[in-house]
Amino acid sequence: MNSGRIYKLQHFIPWTRKKIYYLIVISAIPTILYYFFELKWLAIPWVPVALVGTATAFIAGFRNTQTYNRLWEARQIWGAIVNNSRTWGILVKDMVRDTEVGAEKSLHRDLIYRHFAWLTALRFQLRESRGWENVKTKSYNREYLNYYKVPEWEGSLAEELQNYVTADELEYILKKKNKAAQILALQSARLRDLNQQGKINDLNYVEMQALLKELYDQQGKNERIKNFPYPRQFASINVMFVYLLSIVLPLGFLSEFAKISANCVWFTIPISVIVGWVFFTLEQVGESSENPFEGSANDVPITSMSRAIEIDLRDMLGEENLPEPLVANTNNILM
Amino acid sequence: MNSGRIYKLQHFIPWTRKKIYYLIVISAIPTILYYFFELKWLAIPWVPVALVGTATAFIAGFRNTQTYNRLWEARQIWGAIVNNSRTWGILVKDMVRDTEVGAEKSLHRDLIYRHFAWLTALRFQLRESRGWENVKTKSYNREYLNYYKVPEWEGSLAEELQNYVTADELEYILKKKNKAAQILALQSARLRDLNQQGKINDLNYVEMQALLKELYDQQGKNERIKNFPYPRQFASINVMFVYLLSIVLPLGFLSEFAKISANCVWFTIPISVIVGWVFFTLEQVGESSENPFEGSANDVPITSMSRAIEIDLRDMLGEENLPEPLVANTNNILM
Amino acid sequence: MNSGRIYKLQHFIPWTRKKIYYLIVISAIPTILYYFFELKWLAIPWVPVALVGTATAFIAGFRNTQTYNRLWEARQIWGAIVNNSRTWGILVKDMVRDTEVGAEKSLHRDLIYRHFAWLTALRFQLRESRGWENVKTKSYNREYLNYYKVPEWEGSLAEELQNYVTADELEYILKKKNKAAQILALQSARLRDLNQQGKINDLNYVEMQALLKELYDQQGKNERIKNFPYPRQFASINVMFVYLLSIVLPLGFLSEFAKISANCVWFTIPISVIVGWVFFTLEQVGESSENPFEGSANDVPITSMSRAIEIDLRDMLGEENLPEPLVANTNNILM
Amino acid sequence: MNSGRIYKLQHFIPWTRKKIYYLIVISAIPTILYYFFELKWLAIPWVPVALVGTATAFIAGFRNTQTYNRLWEARQIWGAIVNNSRTWGILVKDMVRDTEVGAEKSLHRDLIYRHFAWLTALRFQLRESRGWENVKTKSYNREYLNYYKVPEWEGSLAEELQNYVTADELEYILKKKNKAAQILALQSARLRDLNQQGKINDLNYVEMQALLKELYDQQGKNERIKNFPYPRQFASINVMFVYLLSIVLPLGFLSEFAKISANCVWFTIPISVIVGWVFFTLEQVGESSENPFEGSANDVPITSMSRAIEIDLRDMLGEENLPEPLVANTNNILM
Amino acid sequence: MNSGRIYKLQHFIPWTRKKIYYLIVISAIPTILYYFFELKWLAIPWVPVALVGTATAFIAGFRNTQTYNRLWEARQIWGAIVNNSRTWGILVKDMVRDTEVGAEKSLHRDLIYRHFAWLTALRFQLRESRGWENVKTKSYNREYLNYYKVPEWEGSLAEELQNYVTADELEYILKKKNKAAQILALQSARLRDLNQQGKINDLNYVEMQALLKELYDQQGKNERIKNFPYPRQFASINVMFVYLLSIVLPLGFLSEFAKISANCVWFTIPISVIVGWVFFTLEQVGESSENPFEGSANDVPITSMSRAIEIDLRDMLGEENLPEPLVANTNNILM
Repeated sequence: MNSGRIYKLQHFIPWTRKKIYYLIVISAIPTILYYFFELKWLAIPWVPVALVGTATAFIAGFRNTQTYNRLWEARQIWGAIVNNSRTWGILVKDMVRDTEVGAEKSLHRDLIYRHFAWLTALRFQLRESRGWENVKTKSYNREYLNYYKVPEWEGSLAEELQNYVTADELEYILKKKNKAAQILALQSARLRDLNQQGKINDLNYVEMQALLKELYDQQGKNERIKNFPYPRQFASINVMFVYLLSIVLPLGFLSEFAKISANCVWFTIPISVIVGWVFFTLEQVGESSENPFEGSANDVPITSMSRAIEIDLRDMLGEENLPEPLVANTNNILM
Repeated sequence: MNSGRIYKLQHFIPWTRKKIYYLIVISAIPTILYYFFELKWLAIPWVPVALVGTATAFIAGFRNTQTYNRLWEARQIWGAIVNNSRTWGILVKDMVRDTEVGAEKSLHRDLIYRHFAWLTALRFQLRESRGWENVKTKSYNREYLNYYKVPEWEGSLAEELQNYVTADELEYILKKKNKAAQILALQSARLRDLNQQGKINDLNYVEMQALLKELYDQQGKNERIKNFPYPRQFASINVMFVYLLSIVLPLGFLSEFAKISANCVWFTIPISVIVGWVFFTLEQVGESSENPFEGSANDVPITSMSRAIEIDLRDMLGEENLPEPLVANTNNILM
Repeated sequence: MNSGRIYKLQHFIPWTRKKIYYLIVISAIPTILYYFFELKWLAIPWVPVALVGTATAFIAGFRNTQTYNRLWEARQIWGAIVNNSRTWGILVKDMVRDTEVGAEKSLHRDLIYRHFAWLTALRFQLRESRGWENVKTKSYNREYLNYYKVPEWEGSLAEELQNYVTADELEYILKKKNKAAQILALQSARLRDLNQQGKINDLNYVEMQALLKELYDQQGKNERIKNFPYPRQFASINVMFVYLLSIVLPLGFLSEFAKISANCVWFTIPISVIVGWVFFTLEQVGESSENPFEGSANDVPITSMSRAIEIDLRDMLGEENLPEPLVANTNNILM
Repeated sequence: MNSGRIYKLQHFIPWTRKKIYYLIVISAIPTILYYFFELKWLAIPWVPVALVGTATAFIAGFRNTQTYNRLWEARQIWGAIVNNSRTWGILVKDMVRDTEVGAEKSLHRDLIYRHFAWLTALRFQLRESRGWENVKTKSYNREYLNYYKVPEWEGSLAEELQNYVTADELEYILKKKNKAAQILALQSARLRDLNQQGKINDLNYVEMQALLKELYDQQGKNERIKNFPYPRQFASINVMFVYLLSIVLPLGFLSEFAKISANCVWFTIPISVIVGWVFFTLEQVGESSENPFEGSANDVPITSMSRAIEIDLRDMLGEENLPEPLVANTNNILM
Repeated sequence: MNSGRIYKLQHFIPWTRKKIYYLIVISAIPTILYYFFELKWLAIPWVPVALVGTATAFIAGFRNTQTYNRLWEARQIWGAIVNNSRTWGILVKDMVRDTEVGAEKSLHRDLIYRHFAWLTALRFQLRESRGWENVKTKSYNREYLNYYKVPEWEGSLAEELQNYVTADELEYILKKKNKAAQILALQSARLRDLNQQGKINDLNYVEMQALLKELYDQQGKNERIKNFPYPRQFASINVMFVYLLSIVLPLGFLSEFAKISANCVWFTIPISVIVGWVFFTLEQVGESSENPFEGSANDVPITSMSRAIEIDLRDMLGEENLPEPLVANTNNILM
């Protein structure tokens, strides 16, 4: 997530420069052919271009709406994870009861730290790569990766997990297919034990189990956004229509500028670039917001949110020397 | 679901080629009549065409929005099925309790495998055909069926179910009208037995029963999307307006090109085809995303999701040799 | 609900023919005045017409969106009724317990058949007529009523109810104002008795009562859509703007065609009819989808859904000779 | 709420006549200056007007969408109040139990009649006036107030409440700030007493208390819509843009009509009025639907809905001589 | 929140005056160059400007929709806080029971006053500043800050909290990172004590704990809106496109006015300013509604809502001399 005021034009222009080069070429070709080779028929009337432009604007608008919804829903899910984590904190602290204070504290710590393990496994899973994601495959996004680091690509899951669970549990977890899902199953098994030992009474047990259900819901919602891309058939027509528009735009402008004077047709190039750039930028911004967990600068900041949860719950446990919150780097990127 | 980056133009063009042929014919007719037979009145002013174009763009946009919503909701429902299946796993494992470990394990396996039976019956029901679906009736979709297989059309429900339930239960289920609904009723009857035997206490029994309620909700939501198409009156005006637009488009272009020169009217044909193709493609993409369970390449991948649930739950049961996850085929189609 | 692929043009044209006659007249008048009486000032510039057209397209789009939402919500509510009915089935079967098998079966049947009574009363109430509904007041809709039958207008509530409740209860229900609401109150009273007799334990009693609450919610949501029309102020501007557009359209076309040649002004009539027909059709389709329980061909198919519920629950009770599901008639209309 | 088919044009025209007068003046001024004083520069090109028109149409569309959402949400909340009221009825009747039939009936009546008191206090609070409401401040709305009566402005809260609560309670309620909120607190106190007396068991007590929570939710949602207007910054730009459009419209039409002939510029006036009227009507309809509890003809009919609830619950109590439902008056207005 | 009827034009114009100055300059430059230096090529055809205008209008519309949604959701969350606060009131009063009346009253007061502490800490946290907020960084917003005061910027958290909690608790709270979250944890710890002392029975304890969960949900939703801005990539293209439009607008108008006469090109300046102002105003209104807790005049009025909750709950406790509600200041601003 960018936590600054705005992306600077000097970032946007390089980020979109390949599209600009393309637009220069695609508009120069018909202009040159028209001017030097007198292919006058290249200048088509404006009206078909306007109709394609309207349809493209609609499609781009539709995509941006859905893309925004995906991003916002992803943030809502992580908001819900924050809320449920805090609730997990108070349920553990006040419903898991032992007559011996030290033993009780240790039970609380165990259940809360295993929750951190779940958060860790979840964010590593979410930052894996998918075939339709763009951050590593598009050159302009790869370039931008120089401006920030993705913590889950730098660190190791096993190493981070060992802060939160015992060695035995760690080994067990690492053998499982969906690690996050199985960590929650471990929590559930632990609750059962505590219930059978009488350390959680039957009513409270049901409440705590219900919270695990909600955590499964949030995990599953994350996986839905991660694993189900913006439908490729819609993404495809988006790309096709923008390119089609970029081809017909200069043809339409040719006829408009030719009305003024023969030399004016050269304005076709800058004007096509400007108008085309608007549509390509819309498209590229949409594309790069589509997958809110792909490791892009526009991701939901799940690493720092997980850290914030850890701080809150350890503060609740009364621990000293809490970890520092993660803040945006010098490029205003917060992961 | 297409799990690649994009549909290639070389797939789109053949897939939409019948519309292109049609557009060539429908725009060639008035052009020929105009040019050779001097039916000058065929060239109508642009403004009515623009108005019809705007209305059609709106209608197409509206349809795409609703179509996308249907697809996304279908995926949400299956996401919820994933979540509830995992919750079913932990509830069964930790709320169904027996003093004898082996007996307990067998109870758990029974309840979890019957859940797989429900998933199987549900996806077979969802992949049946309906009168308004397009995948088998439209020639371009039938052609595309060569690129992938629909597992529910290849396999047999009875055969797959016998992996999950006893022969007696299988016979019972196969006699029922709505098999999936009756499998959940069997689960409910089983829970009652276990509750009466004291293997599920009263509070936990209520929780597990509540989960069955949620599974009925998800099944019913699936059936709603399956059995209630995008309303045919809206679909109908969509088709009619696009065809109407394709008829008036060349008439409008005729007058625009005639302004340039007499020979230029021949450009009416390629430009009508390009602009018309944009609208027909929008329409055809909308149509082929409308029914997310019809067996099309854009379906929600319910077969692979069911498999993923099976893997997770059997992993939770501690089974070895788990089945492999289903992956996209070479054409990037995941069912 | 139309369960076919599409409404045929040969249905749409007769259904909208009055609007077509009107459009012929309204565009012929200014054309005749212009041509024969030389009222040249009737030909106004195109730009005001375009602006009115845009505003009308927006308003029509807005209405169609809301209309679709009403229809879709109505279907969602009935989907929820299906789900809750099945849940009612399993709760009754597994939570109402009697040591004597025969007595238990009879209790189950009683509670489940009274649920059918509720469904019946509800659908009769929903198919009553309201002042703003269109199916009986608009001639084109009355004509269309020949193509299908509305079961609730053919049958009698009392007759159908007697299949599900005792004569005493029937008499009691028929005296009540809101029969469906009072049938649920009867269910509630019955649950209380069974709870006091110990046939439903306290925890299960609360669950079953909670389901009655949900059924009240669904009934009330149905009544909301039934009793609160698409706001008449919005419906009114819709109608006014479409008629206003139909008046200014030919005036704008006159000037456009007059630019070509004097005789060409006669094209004003067919073109006005075509463009006007697009807007009137949008409006008429919106109008006839507005009230999803009015007995129109586009209704939510509540009769067949009620029948499907009856089949499922009687199948669950283990009954033989289940009723047949209702299917679409030869005109593809399913009620 | 208007329960008729449509607002007649003969109501709309007087209701919007001030805007029409204004439009005549604002378009006559530049026309006169142009024609008689030859201020030719007043005729500006059409394109800036089109751009302002598009932006205004968007803004008007946005407002109507949000306004509609406010109205529809208000109706949903009241639908939920209806549903919860019926549920309150069955919970009271079947969960509040006394061994003595007469005493039990009296307990039921007490709790249900106090619910009517809450409904009454709530609707009086909702029909108070707010600074941003339009029904009393705009002359065209004041005129329209002759066509119907707002019951909460005619009656007295104290008088109506005494039908439902004892004199002591009435005095207590009238001293409170938020009367509706404190009536629910009274209900809660009553439930506590009954729980402590053993007339509501612990499980049922929790359910009934949960319903009070829902009633607080619905009351609060009502207050949200009542107390938080459509944001004034958005409302403000709406008004400003429509007036700006009304000023530039005639300037743009002047140049279009001047192209035809000098005398034709007089058509600027009627055409500006027609097009301007479309936008002002959109704006005025939006404005008068914005606040669904202000006492306008487009209000949610909360008085008649409260009456309907009273009828249903008294019918449930088995009372005779139920009150009559409220119906729309001769002008089709239902409050 | 502005609680008046409308923002006056005399407020809007100064508030947007910098944009007006900018527009004068940006349109004067090409006009001067065109007129005096005869750079005729500066006059570009209208069509590219129209296309950029359409895309910008779409983007501005999209932003306003999302901005409105953020504001409205913020208000919904605070509505839910109001509702849950009242429910907290009745749960405390009727579920926390002590045989001794005075002791019970004191327990109730303690739990309800600590709730006020939570509200106070929450609103102080929400009114802190973030890097992307505009109220303090944009000169036009800083100017507007003279018209009202933000109570959380004037007061001190510690001082206000001491009205609600003991000195010990105050010290504990002030040491914590997320004070509001830890106050709820204190409530939870208190409930546990009361449950263990038998002053809240087990069933009621679960209900009260569930309400704390909901309060965490609302706090977290607030933090989501506070900490996750309208995505900066979308905000950025908004700003860029509006500025781009403001640059090309006068170029397009130049050619339109030049068609009329050479001197008419001077109209480019006022018309560019008017049309550009519409788009800049849309943008600026969107920007200043984006962050509903930043201390702007358009904020959700969380200070007065917190006061209203305090009044209601103290009224419920039966306290005399309740505080006065906060009302809008003379500039109609309610915080």
